[in-house]
Parts: sequence; structure tokens; C-alpha cells
Amino acid sequence: MERNSMNGATNGVNGAPAEDQHHFLTKLMDMMITEGIDKANDRKNKIVEFKHPKELEKMLDLKLKDPTNDDRLLDICNDVIKYSVKTGHPRFFNQLFGGLDEYTLGGAWLTETLNASQYTYEVSPVFTLMEQCVIRKMLRLAGIENGDGIFCPGGSISNMYALNVARYQRFPDCKTKGMQALPKICVLTSEKGHYSLKKGAGFLGIGMDNVLPIQTDDQGRMSPKALEETIQDCITKGIVPYIVNATAGSTVLGAYDPLEEIADICEKYKIWMHVDGAWGAGCLLSQKYKGFMKGIERADSLTWNPHKMMGTNLQAAVFLTKHKTVLLDAHSAKAKYLFQQDKFYDVSYDTGDKSIQCGRKVDALKVWTMWKAKGDAGLEEDIDNLFSCSRYLTQLIKARDGFKMVQEPQCTNVCFWYIPKRLRGKPETKEWWEQVGKVAPVIKQRMVEKGTLLIGYQPDGDLVNFFRMIFSNMAVTKSDVEFIIDEIDRLGCDL
Amino acid sequence: MERNSMNGATNGVNGAPAEDQHHFLTKLMDMMITEGIDKANDRKNKIVEFKHPKELEKMLDLKLKDPTNDDRLLDICNDVIKYSVKTGHPRFFNQLFGGLDEYTLGGAWLTETLNASQYTYEVSPVFTLMEQCVIRKMLRLAGIENGDGIFCPGGSISNMYALNVARYQRFPDCKTKGMQALPKICVLTSEKGHYSLKKGAGFLGIGMDNVLPIQTDDQGRMSPKALEETIQDCITKGIVPYIVNATAGSTVLGAYDPLEEIADICEKYKIWMHVDGAWGAGCLLSQKYKGFMKGIERADSLTWNPHKMMGTNLQAAVFLTKHKTVLLDAHSAKAKYLFQQDKFYDVSYDTGDKSIQCGRKVDALKVWTMWKAKGDAGLEEDIDNLFSCSRYLTQLIKARDGFKMVQEPQCTNVCFWYIPKRLRGKPETKEWWEQVGKVAPVIKQRMVEKGTLLIGYQPDGDLVNFFRMIFSNMAVTKSDVEFIIDEIDRLGCDL
Ligand SMILES: Cc1ncc(COP(=O)(O)O)c(C=O)c1O
Ligand SMILES: Cc1ncc(COP(=O)(O)O)c(C=O)c1O
Repeated sequence: MERNSMNGATNGVNGAPAEDQHHFLTKLMDMMITEGIDKANDRKNKIVEFKHPKELEKMLDLKLKDPTNDDRLLDICNDVIKYSVKTGHPRFFNQLFGGLDEYTLGGAWLTETLNASQYTYEVSPVFTLMEQCVIRKMLRLAGIENGDGIFCPGGSISNMYALNVARYQRFPDCKTKGMQALPKICVLTSEKGHYSLKKGAGFLGIGMDNVLPIQTDDQGRMSPKALEETIQDCITKGIVPYIVNATAGSTVLGAYDPLEEIADICEKYKIWMHVDGAWGAGCLLSQKYKGFMKGIERADSLTWNPHKMMGTNLQAAVFLTKHKTVLLDAHSAKAKYLFQQDKFYDVSYDTGDKSIQCGRKVDALKVWTMWKAKGDAGLEEDIDNLFSCSRYLTQLIKARDGFKMVQEPQCTNVCFWYIPKRLRGKPETKEWWEQVGKVAPVIKQRMVEKGTLLIGYQPDGDLVNFFRMIFSNMAVTKSDVEFIIDEIDRLGCDL
Repeated sequence: MERNSMNGATNGVNGAPAEDQHHFLTKLMDMMITEGIDKANDRKNKIVEFKHPKELEKMLDLKLKDPTNDDRLLDICNDVIKYSVKTGHPRFFNQLFGGLDEYTLGGAWLTETLNASQYTYEVSPVFTLMEQCVIRKMLRLAGIENGDGIFCPGGSISNMYALNVARYQRFPDCKTKGMQALPKICVLTSEKGHYSLKKGAGFLGIGMDNVLPIQTDDQGRMSPKALEETIQDCITKGIVPYIVNATAGSTVLGAYDPLEEIADICEKYKIWMHVDGAWGAGCLLSQKYKGFMKGIERADSLTWNPHKMMGTNLQAAVFLTKHKTVLLDAHSAKAKYLFQQDKFYDVSYDTGDKSIQCGRKVDALKVWTMWKAKGDAGLEEDIDNLFSCSRYLTQLIKARDGFKMVQEPQCTNVCFWYIPKRLRGKPETKEWWEQVGKVAPVIKQRMVEKGTLLIGYQPDGDLVNFFRMIFSNMAVTKSDVEFIIDEIDRLGCDL
């Protein structure tokens, strides 16, 4: 007799009695469709049923110790859904991702069902080819002819790949001998660049202080002049600025750094040019908006997160480079137990040694299913809609009393202040701004409590707390845009 | 009218006509159950339908360009399943993971449905508490009272966390000033340790050459004597050995390094002791086998992958440490747009700044569902079964002509050679071993072509290619063990 009887009480997949097969899974499936998708993502329902940590802890039976039967477990799963934030809800705009596409979700479920690891063709034949296909497509959109790329666990790690492969390209000794064999080096990125560059510099032994912030213009774009000055200054001091990170779609303001001018400077000084398009590179799919990234084909590498502007499930982040072998050269460790050279198939298909990971989750399938379903044209239409909604909101804000734009949008970020009645028309003194800065946190708390809308806020540099409305949720419509502005007014009218 | 009509052609989730709702998802679901689970994981069916890359490329319609209707897309998904390796099949033993548990799969599906990111309590209230709950449970099993931990995208990155937090603890300046502000440092790990330590040293700017391999005994365990000698040698040369990585379950041989003796040495020289239990730490759940990790409570940190020995879906890897604040101290970048300090809830629940990632996929739920369902006792039974099957295979191998053990198993790795008839009983000369080394690749090719069984092989140091039978697939039974040995004999009898 097979061991499944021993195993059967808690493991229905292999060999449980036929009538009981997949009891848990099929019940859960129904619950996911009804509670996790239909109800959760209906505009009429709340995005979040907020509880404070201590309170929630008491309400959820999380404790691990005794076995639990299916019914009880399903009840708890129902609570998990109930108290989770509905990121798929059409009015979830809190992060750079959101919404729920049936095709990417299906791809994600199938990924889990097939539970593969992407290191070798041997274990992941289909996914090896599929990753290649998605990467090539993205390379082409970025105008890179004969490059390479890889899915990474997030845009932050993708940016760290850039920091490392660029370092390897310039100083190959670093891989074996470490930073101590190198001259003093530094990383240049705009003062509005993503914090992963700093985190990366800390992690990679470069040091956070060696990430030099380049000034931006009044639209949050890196100033090429300031960039060149900083480079010259470094050279004078004997420090090698080995990589420039240009941001294509900055996190808060949505600014696109001027890539052509940055490329000119990088060429002149022979510096690796990386573009962090984790957020904004989705515009490459749009004829109308891809001009924001003019010059991208001149970059050495690019970070691009399909899970942000393209609307796939988390986690989907790609690192692309025009240097065909640098990923392998910089990262390979040639482990003999995994990358045997005497296998019976063409082992150049084994991609694992290009990565800093060993086991690597399949991220390509959920991107591929969505792209295959919608086609280039469908994606373009979705992305154009995001941009056009952001322009529509801008228009509404400008026409509306009590709302004040931080700046004109470039990417789909719309940044604005809500000005309570008592402050309207008053001189914009330091005290006035202090008061304005206290508004967003209060409205945010009310939003969460009411659960009708979720939008983030933050300060930025000298600017006090403002709302950052992000259009990345593909379900958004013009009437949602109208709802946003009305709802903020409702929530804040008494402040 | 809502925009969904524009979006509806390719996006069924939000607002498509009711009768069409979830057409793709529900069809896919049926296919996953029938083709992806039931058929795929039936012992009677093949584990893999192998095609060479060029051939497979022609058979799969992967190309991205035009939109695709649901029926066509479902057909291609069917091909995706057909040509993927069935890692859930009860006779898939090719990697350190395998098998398919209904509860972890359900948890993984639910994770995708809720599509959250784990940086803040605001977006992931339930998952924040759930991660904490799983981490605390694992800390307790490792005998760590008041520690901290985090899910990472894989054991390799978890080991890199160890390299970085230990470096920070000893040399906090490294975070801001980089490696160049440090004395020469090095990493000590056994010569059989996982290659991620080397990859990590390359990535973190330490340099691969500064990972010093410590000799192992004849069972593949780190020699404490060799460790101490290397430490003294480093000190003499003015190099700081700042971290010792002890392996608990080595990748190929399954060796457990002697933790107590290593802890004594680390204490004596004040060196951070990390334990890489990515593979073998699952034994902590077993009263019978946890003795292999005696002394673990003395370690400073531990890597432990539930997706390996515990049988959860990929990717589940945990980094644990007894130093309560070191993750935050070493990794924080205090991004204001994400970790606002003026939020209305207790922001100490925002875990994101402990990580090197920004967006972080939820990994805890799929571990939690399985653990909650099976309970401690269910997991213990499963793990004991893996160990006892490995001991049973060892017994069979020893009794069988044509099989030769590499060494006694410690973890559930059973390493052995198959000796073809013509070589049996002959003197074990250099040429004889050369011949033996050619056997495994041929049998492996036949295995793949026949699709009945998947086991890995590799050389190791001076040892020529041998099979590494890994017991991590929870569905394995004694009769599978008997099948393994018979099948290898069938596949190799004419060699
Ligand atoms: C001992 C050991 N450590 C670390 C790892 C890396 O784990 P992951 O594949 O999750 O990166 C492995 C992988 O096989 C391993 O065997
Ligand atoms: C511009 C930019 N780069 C990089 C990242 C990091 O991406 P991830 O969250 O996938 O690590 C973000 C995240 O918001 C971002 O906005």
C-alpha cells in the first residue's frame, strides 16, 4: 500500500480517496472567486476593513500548533480575505501596483500549480523559453538589439544587478578580490531617484554615502548640467563615478530624467548608464507616450517592472542590458552539482548562473499570459488610458477650489495638496504650509476607515505632505477620477 | 458608463458581462486540476515529456504580438502544462524541492488572488501578522528566544543577508562608507558549503577569493580543527574572519556540520556564526532527527527554506537572527514616501525597511496554510517519513549488487554510484572510476526520455559523477524507494 494513507489526513493531493479529492482546494477556489475577486473588487464594497494590529491579532486565529480541519481552515482563510486590503479593487491607488487582471492571475495560479524553479532547462523547459521570449520582446521595445535580461525578485534587486554588473564591467577584479582592490568609486542618481540605489550601495559594499544625489529641475528631472559638474568634481577628487542611474518615472513625482542628454554625458565620460524604469518604462508600449524615454536605446541597462505600470501580478521585475554576456560573467559561480556540463542537452539554455539566486521562482508566465491575451494593442490601450486619466484628474484639480497641483504630471503620478476651506486664499506662509502638511494624514486615516478609496501621501524634500495619486490600476475610468476628487473633498471638508 | 467596456475584451475581472465572468479563469482552473494536478502527479504518468530547446520552441506558440482569444490561450496553457516538468509528481526527486501539497498550493493561489506587497501594515495587515507568527514559530524551534526574521526570495539571498548583517554588526561603517573603510575581511565556510556564499561575497563586494573553504571530514562535515587553524592563520595575516557559515544539510552530501564545536570556536574568537540550514533545518521539526542540529540555539543567524524539506511551494526562505534590531539597522534607508512616521497606526509593524527589497511578495501564507492544516505533528510525521525512506534506500543499496554508497546519509540525501555489470568486482583503478563517472549521465538521459523517475547526479571534489537521491517529496513511500532502485537497474543494465 502506498504511504498516502499515512499522509492522507492532511494532504489531499496524492492518493486521497477520490470523492474527497481536492476538498480544500475546490472550496477555496469558490471562496476566492466570490470573496476574493467578485466582492472584493466591486466598487460598492470597501477596499479595506481596517483593524489596528493588536485588535486584528485577536480576531485572527493564526497560531500554529495543532492540526486544523478543512472547514475551520477555510473559515480562517475567509478572515484572511476579509481583513486584507483589496489591492484588486478598482479604487485602490495606494501603491505603484493595483488592479486585478484575469489573465495575469491565471498565469500566477498556473505558476503555483507547476511550482518550478527557473535555474535549468532540465527543470523548466517551457519557462526557460518563455522567459527568453518575454525578455526579447521587452529588449526590442527598449530598442536593444542583441542584449540579455533576467527576471529578478523586484525592481530594487534589479537595480542592484545594475550596480553590480556595471562594477564588474569596469573592474572585473571586484568579483574575486572585492571592493578593496578598487579605487574609490561612486554612484550617481538624482536626488529624487529610488532609495533602492542607496540600499544597494549599502548591500554591495559601496557604501550609501557614495551614492551622490544629483540636483533636479523644478519638474523633478535630473539636471544634466549638475550631473556633469558632479562627474568632474569626482574626477578631480580621484573618485570614479562608474554608473549613472537615470530614473524613468520617479516614485513620487513621476519625473522622467532626460535620457538623451544623460547618454551624451555618459558616453563622453565612459560611464555605465542605467535607467531605472521600474515604474515608468511601461510607456514604451505606447506610441503616444514613449517619447518620455527617448534615448533609452543608448542606455547600458534598464530596470522595468511589469507588475507596476503594466498591471501584472507581483512580483515581476526585469533587468535588461545590451551587454550580452555581462550577467553571466559577473554572477557565475559554476556550481557543478547544478550546471553540469555533461548533460545531454544544450546547456547554454541553463540560465541560473546569470542570477544571484539559486532557486528562482517563475515570474514570466503571469506576464506572458496577460500579454498574449491582450496583445501589444491591448496593453497600449490600457496604458494610454492610465495616462489619459492622469491628465483628466489634473484638469479637474486645476478647475476645483481647494486643490492645488504640486507640478504638471509626466508619468501617471498626479501630486496635489488638498487645502481646507479655512486656509484657502490665505498667504502661503511657513505656518500656512505647516497646516497644509497636516491635512493628508487625517484624510488618509478617514479614507482607510471609510474604505472607499486608497491613495498615498508623503512629504518630498521641502514640500509638505501631499497626495500622490497613482494611475496604475487598469480598471480605472473617468468616473473613478471624478469620484476621487469628490471623495477627498467630502472627507476633508471640515478640516 | 464605466470604462470596463473598453477593457472588457481582454479583462474579464472588472465589469465584464455576468455570464462571461471569469470564463478564462474557470476553464483554466478545471485544466489545472485535471491536467496540472491529477494527471501530472499520478505515478502512472510521465514526469516529463522531454523536447530539446529548438524542437520545443517550434511546438509552443509563445510569440507576443496580437491579442489571443480564450480558447486559443487555454490550448497554449495546456501545452505549457504538457511540456513542463511535473515537479509535483511523487517520483520527482531531481531537486531539493518537489511534491505537491494541497494546502500550500491553496495558500499560494490565495496569495496571488490577494496580490499584496509586504512592505507596510497599511497594505498587508494580515500578512504582516502572519509572517510574524511563522517567523516566531521557527525562531522557537531553533531555540532563539527574542530574535527577528524575515522571508527572503530564496536561501541564497537569505545567506547574503547573513553576510551583510554580520558585517554591519562588526563594522557598522560599512553601510555608509563601504568596504573600503574596513580592514581586510573574509568569510569561512566548509568546502562543501553552498555556492551562494561565494556568489554573495562577489555581490557584496567582499570578493569570492575571500571566502575561505574549510576542510571537511570523510563525511563531508566541517572540521573544527581546520576551522580554528584557518582563523589563526587569518589573524596572523591581519585578515578578519568575521563570519563562519556552518552548513546544516549540505546540498550534495547532506552533511550537518558540528554546530556545538563550531559555536565554541566562534565564541572564543568572537565571530558571527551563521547556519545555512536552507536544506536541512527541517529536521528541527522532528524529535527523532533534530539532534543533527544540536547547538543551533548558539548561532547568531539561520537560513531555513520551508520550500525544501518542509514541502511548501517555492519560494519560501527565511532568515532568522537572535539580534533583534540588526536587520533594521543594517538595511534601513528610511524612505519617507513609504515609511511615513505620521501614520495613524503603530508603524513599528511596517517591516519593509528590514529588507533589501521594496515591493516584497507574500511568502508566509503558503507556509502558514500548510502548517495550520497539518499541525506540528503532521509536519513531524512527514519529515520523519523522508528520513526513514532515506534510511530504507540505504539499506536496499547496501544489499544490492551494482550499487555503491558514497557515504552514510545524515540528512535525507542518499548518494550512490550505479556500477554496470562489466565493471562489478573489478579493481577500482583510475580508469575504472572514469568509466563509472560516465554512467550517471547516460542513465539520467534515459530517465528523462522514459519519464518515470527524476534524480540528479553530479561529481563532487574527487568523486566522479554519482546519483544524489533527495528525499524531500512528501508523497514518497517505501514502494517508491523500491521502484527507484529497480528502475535504475533497468535503465542501466546494458551499460
Ligand atoms: C545548503 C543550501 N544553501 C542554500 C541554498 C540556496 O537556496 P535557494 O535555492 O532558495 O536560493 C541551497 C539550495 O539548494 C542549499 O542547498
Ligand atoms: C522608480 C522605482 N525604482 C525601483 C523601485 C523598486 O521596485 P520594487 O518595489 O519592485 O523593488 C520602485 C518601487 O516603487 C520605484 O518606484
